[in-house]
Amino acid sequence: MIKTGIVGALSYTGRELLKIFEKHSQAELVYCTSESSGGKTGTFFPFLRNNIHLQKYQTQNAAASCDLIFLALPPGAAHDYVYELTTLKPELKIIDLSGAYRLISPEDFSFYYGFEHRHISLAEKAVYGLCEIYREKIRKAQLITNPGCYPTAALLPLVPLIRKNLVEPKDIIIDAKSGISGKGKKLHEDSLFCELNENSCSYKTGTHQHTPEIERILADNGLGIKVLFSPSVIPLSRGMLSNSYFRSRAPLEKLIETLASFYKNSPFIKIREAGRYPAILDVAGTNQAHINIFEDERTGFFLAVSAIDNLLKGASGQAVQNMNIMYGINETEGLL
Amino acid sequence: MIKTGIVGALSYTGRELLKIFEKHSQAELVYCTSESSGGKTGTFFPFLRNNIHLQKYQTQNAAASCDLIFLALPPGAAHDYVYELTTLKPELKIIDLSGAYRLISPEDFSFYYGFEHRHISLAEKAVYGLCEIYREKIRKAQLITNPGCYPTAALLPLVPLIRKNLVEPKDIIIDAKSGISGKGKKLHEDSLFCELNENSCSYKTGTHQHTPEIERILADNGLGIKVLFSPSVIPLSRGMLSNSYFRSRAPLEKLIETLASFYKNSPFIKIREAGRYPAILDVAGTNQAHINIFEDERTGFFLAVSAIDNLLKGASGQAVQNMNIMYGINETEGLL
Amino acid sequence: MIKTGIVGALSYTGRELLKIFEKHSQAELVYCTSESSGGKTGTFFPFLRNNIHLQKYQTQNAAASCDLIFLALPPGAAHDYVYELTTLKPELKIIDLSGAYRLISPEDFSFYYGFEHRHISLAEKAVYGLCEIYREKIRKAQLITNPGCYPTAALLPLVPLIRKNLVEPKDIIIDAKSGISGKGKKLHEDSLFCELNENSCSYKTGTHQHTPEIERILADNGLGIKVLFSPSVIPLSRGMLSNSYFRSRAPLEKLIETLASFYKNSPFIKIREAGRYPAILDVAGTNQAHINIFEDERTGFFLAVSAIDNLLKGASGQAVQNMNIMYGINETEGLL
Amino acid sequence: MIKTGIVGALSYTGRELLKIFEKHSQAELVYCTSESSGGKTGTFFPFLRNNIHLQKYQTQNAAASCDLIFLALPPGAAHDYVYELTTLKPELKIIDLSGAYRLISPEDFSFYYGFEHRHISLAEKAVYGLCEIYREKIRKAQLITNPGCYPTAALLPLVPLIRKNLVEPKDIIIDAKSGISGKGKKLHEDSLFCELNENSCSYKTGTHQHTPEIERILADNGLGIKVLFSPSVIPLSRGMLSNSYFRSRAPLEKLIETLASFYKNSPFIKIREAGRYPAILDVAGTNQAHINIFEDERTGFFLAVSAIDNLLKGASGQAVQNMNIMYGINETEGLL
Repeated sequence: MIKTGIVGALSYTGRELLKIFEKHSQAELVYCTSESSGGKTGTFFPFLRNNIHLQKYQTQNAAASCDLIFLALPPGAAHDYVYELTTLKPELKIIDLSGAYRLISPEDFSFYYGFEHRHISLAEKAVYGLCEIYREKIRKAQLITNPGCYPTAALLPLVPLIRKNLVEPKDIIIDAKSGISGKGKKLHEDSLFCELNENSCSYKTGTHQHTPEIERILADNGLGIKVLFSPSVIPLSRGMLSNSYFRSRAPLEKLIETLASFYKNSPFIKIREAGRYPAILDVAGTNQAHINIFEDERTGFFLAVSAIDNLLKGASGQAVQNMNIMYGINETEGLL
Repeated sequence: MIKTGIVGALSYTGRELLKIFEKHSQAELVYCTSESSGGKTGTFFPFLRNNIHLQKYQTQNAAASCDLIFLALPPGAAHDYVYELTTLKPELKIIDLSGAYRLISPEDFSFYYGFEHRHISLAEKAVYGLCEIYREKIRKAQLITNPGCYPTAALLPLVPLIRKNLVEPKDIIIDAKSGISGKGKKLHEDSLFCELNENSCSYKTGTHQHTPEIERILADNGLGIKVLFSPSVIPLSRGMLSNSYFRSRAPLEKLIETLASFYKNSPFIKIREAGRYPAILDVAGTNQAHINIFEDERTGFFLAVSAIDNLLKGASGQAVQNMNIMYGINETEGLL
Repeated sequence: MIKTGIVGALSYTGRELLKIFEKHSQAELVYCTSESSGGKTGTFFPFLRNNIHLQKYQTQNAAASCDLIFLALPPGAAHDYVYELTTLKPELKIIDLSGAYRLISPEDFSFYYGFEHRHISLAEKAVYGLCEIYREKIRKAQLITNPGCYPTAALLPLVPLIRKNLVEPKDIIIDAKSGISGKGKKLHEDSLFCELNENSCSYKTGTHQHTPEIERILADNGLGIKVLFSPSVIPLSRGMLSNSYFRSRAPLEKLIETLASFYKNSPFIKIREAGRYPAILDVAGTNQAHINIFEDERTGFFLAVSAIDNLLKGASGQAVQNMNIMYGINETEGLL
Repeated sequence: MIKTGIVGALSYTGRELLKIFEKHSQAELVYCTSESSGGKTGTFFPFLRNNIHLQKYQTQNAAASCDLIFLALPPGAAHDYVYELTTLKPELKIIDLSGAYRLISPEDFSFYYGFEHRHISLAEKAVYGLCEIYREKIRKAQLITNPGCYPTAALLPLVPLIRKNLVEPKDIIIDAKSGISGKGKKLHEDSLFCELNENSCSYKTGTHQHTPEIERILADNGLGIKVLFSPSVIPLSRGMLSNSYFRSRAPLEKLIETLASFYKNSPFIKIREAGRYPAILDVAGTNQAHINIFEDERTGFFLAVSAIDNLLKGASGQAVQNMNIMYGINETEGLL
């Protein structure tokens, strides 16, 4: 059994990890933390069956107790903990769900995350945990930087096409919609039910912190361009829909075949039937990503659409999938 | 008092017209029809105060009773009725909320609406009722073709910029989200609450019937290009958010000033403060359109965002605004 | 023009008052306050047309500026302000939307509201502003204690029956559901969208502060009993549905006729057709109350159902209706 | 492996069965039917992994293929099929999710279900599949009549109390709220998203078909009284909250202890901590029932609250739990 820890167990992503671990046959939760409820024992979420004991985070204890630690924290906190844990116990495996190790440019961390990154060399060693794209690197990784929800949705359809040189290197626009759980549990007036229900708006056009993350992975796979990433919130709890507009010289069939071939052994990726649109309701509560591509012959644009559950394939589900890959366990363990 | 008729009074757009006419001081409802409930008297919607008598539509009666008729019907039916009414009583004013007279190409009607248009010359005479853009023509119009909801949202920010030659003639992408009432009252399994709640998906990428409508008006204002129009449904009852991505050589301030200047006497248009995003909840239940423009300096794209209530500014509210303009009444009468 | 003030203009009920005053022909907003935004000028809600200037509340200024003041505050603050304003300017009219003057027992204030009430004699003079029930008293009132949303919904069907001695004095159960705006804008983790969406639960069974308010008004109309008041939240923004179970020796027709007769001159009350259930969607956004009564012959129970918008007929709409009555204005002014 | 069939596989309850069977280790789906899609092969729901082949229902084939058949059909159709299957193959096990065999009075079938029941003696032999209450009978059952969603929610807290004689035999009122999936996939205008979203209303007060079902099981456990059952719809997809008001001479602690003791070996039943309210969001997507009891000392009423997922514990989850019990499999198999 893998001795596993969750730091930040009462966040939305922590909660999803707890749910998954009630079904996972190869992992044992030995260490859970919460700053607000450290010292208490309970299920904390009434739908869970097993009691857990929550502690206040303490680096020595965390490192001593666990083979693998999930960090479900804001980036600022994760930035420190990852470094300290790695220094203290180099053989510890870490899956960081924050964005603290997803970039390698100090300027990008300052601009997009608002803090000064002091461990860039560690960020350079971190493996980007987009499971279906970096499976081989993940197998051997010590530190996984778990992808953001928007990048997961946007990159899954684009990367296989890019690797085959099927995307023109210009003018990609990604217009993506996220359910509200992406905002997390922070208390703001604009996170109240009555402010979000029956509402939708765009935000952070071109300035969202997932922009450089997407561009870094596109570049890593051969497309070194800037993209316009334009997110919106839509009034549902969980789920994400990503529309990527791009140009290609290949015919639609070629693009779809490329995806089908690339993902044929990936149990969580489904290329929808020709002409069928991925829908959030089909993936909510699952670790699946549904994908399809559409062509507008009049303008020459292609549209890659993908739908995921932002808390599962976009966060905690993919984190456990990464763990499964790291330990050579069946990739779907705990996730069906 | 303007003697007014509503053909199709029990549709969602008919219902909104009935609501508005309970507040309108210059119009009197003298003729209302419903195919399913013709012959009955009542309020039909329990929140209305006044009884109406519903008839089955009959062209002679409609023409004889009314000074002005609103058609809240599917395009196929409106196609015939507009022609017959116009022929029978040329001085009758008509506001057609369907799309039956919004285009002038027979091929477009066949492809996008699925019927053969037999009155193209009448379509050529119809005035496109985008109030703030075509106010002068509307004043003198006999037949108004009331704009579609998506075109209203997309065109309001773009047309003033185009008239000033501020939009590059290439690669405009319009990614727009609509609430569910846009589907109307038709019975389909995929219109059920449980199929739409907590769901969102794109549809009809590049093939939606509002595509040629948008392009026709762009061209009429000086931008003769093809655009990619890409709609989605989002799980709320009423409201629409439209994102238009375009390029411009002008600075952001110039674009915003152009809009502010163009709309300074338009009581329903609000240019949001710099950096503030239009939101559906701010316009739902009103005839307002909220607009703003954002720039992504990294990629050079601009984003024009607009939010409207698809049933009001996107349909029945704008229809009454058109009536007000046609009769020289205060533009906001019945609409505040 | 009535010189009017709103203390707490940025709360949900304050916002609704601002909306109404943009349509009210007899009142002029001369004084608006906000603790957080005092000193700023703007519309504060983007759907409003008129700028207002917000001040920090100051008793002298408030009293000097206004003929009538609406207090849209928590009960603790309203408790003090009402007393001070009344003392300073006895001819000032006040409509208090909080619960601070709805009861007359110090013990009830302590138990249900959690503060010690020091102005019971003022509470005894306040007129309970349930418009259709206390219209005559309201006409002459100086201080209106505006009813709670749940009491408004529960009392409107019950009081006319009680006055005619048609309700058995025992075992009334009121099971009522409220939309989320009833929680106000306070920041709690359990007010977040993801905690309330797709959720519903009961709360405060028998201990909600509206219990003694309902019982006081029932007693005032002749039914001196204790009732079980049992509220729930349901996942919608605005609206309230109240089910009251009671026994009667009269036939159903008699009960319905009694209501129809009682409310025949009340423009906001609608007795639904026999067998038709009041629905929240029919009253949301209006100042209406829809009412009906059902009989279960098998068990002998009757069920009185009512639906209101908790922010309008349950708060700000009724507050303005009270103002209209106090000033002899048409009762519907500003409210259609 | 149990050879299993689903008749009506594309209904909402059929869909949930298909989902569960992708996780069930002891059952094999060998026969699935759909009237509309018979003859087709596919997953039919894009989130499922396994193809199924749909047939048109045919009694001989069904009986020949299966050890156990789930009927996910309207009551009228199930009424005939259960009889024919039982006659043709007496050793076939059947779990009927419709209400066709839940009552034993022909008059009740006529009044509440609207059809003449011709197999009352078979209904008398059917075992009521409320798992935690009738576990022993279920073990040996041939025909299970799977409980309705409302009765499941209402009976789980009441039956253990009744068996201990802790509920006064009078005046029980059950006020229950259901999510929209309880309406099924039938096409009606009032099932459309825009008619149900932001809406709630009561319906069928005292005349819902679950009334005699609840009373029959109460009587079977020792409480032979009539209850008032009063349902409402609330705007969420799945979940149900049931409030039962009753009187008792026992103290609250005794009632709670009785439930805790009764359910101590029932993995799906959770008695919430003292004072904590069951919430729909805690049980949605699970086969759990959350229960608690509250006392109003002022009026002497007790309130039993329960929350379930109407499609799982209220339908398909409980159906599989019944199968597990019938075959001596772990009760939670396929359901965690």
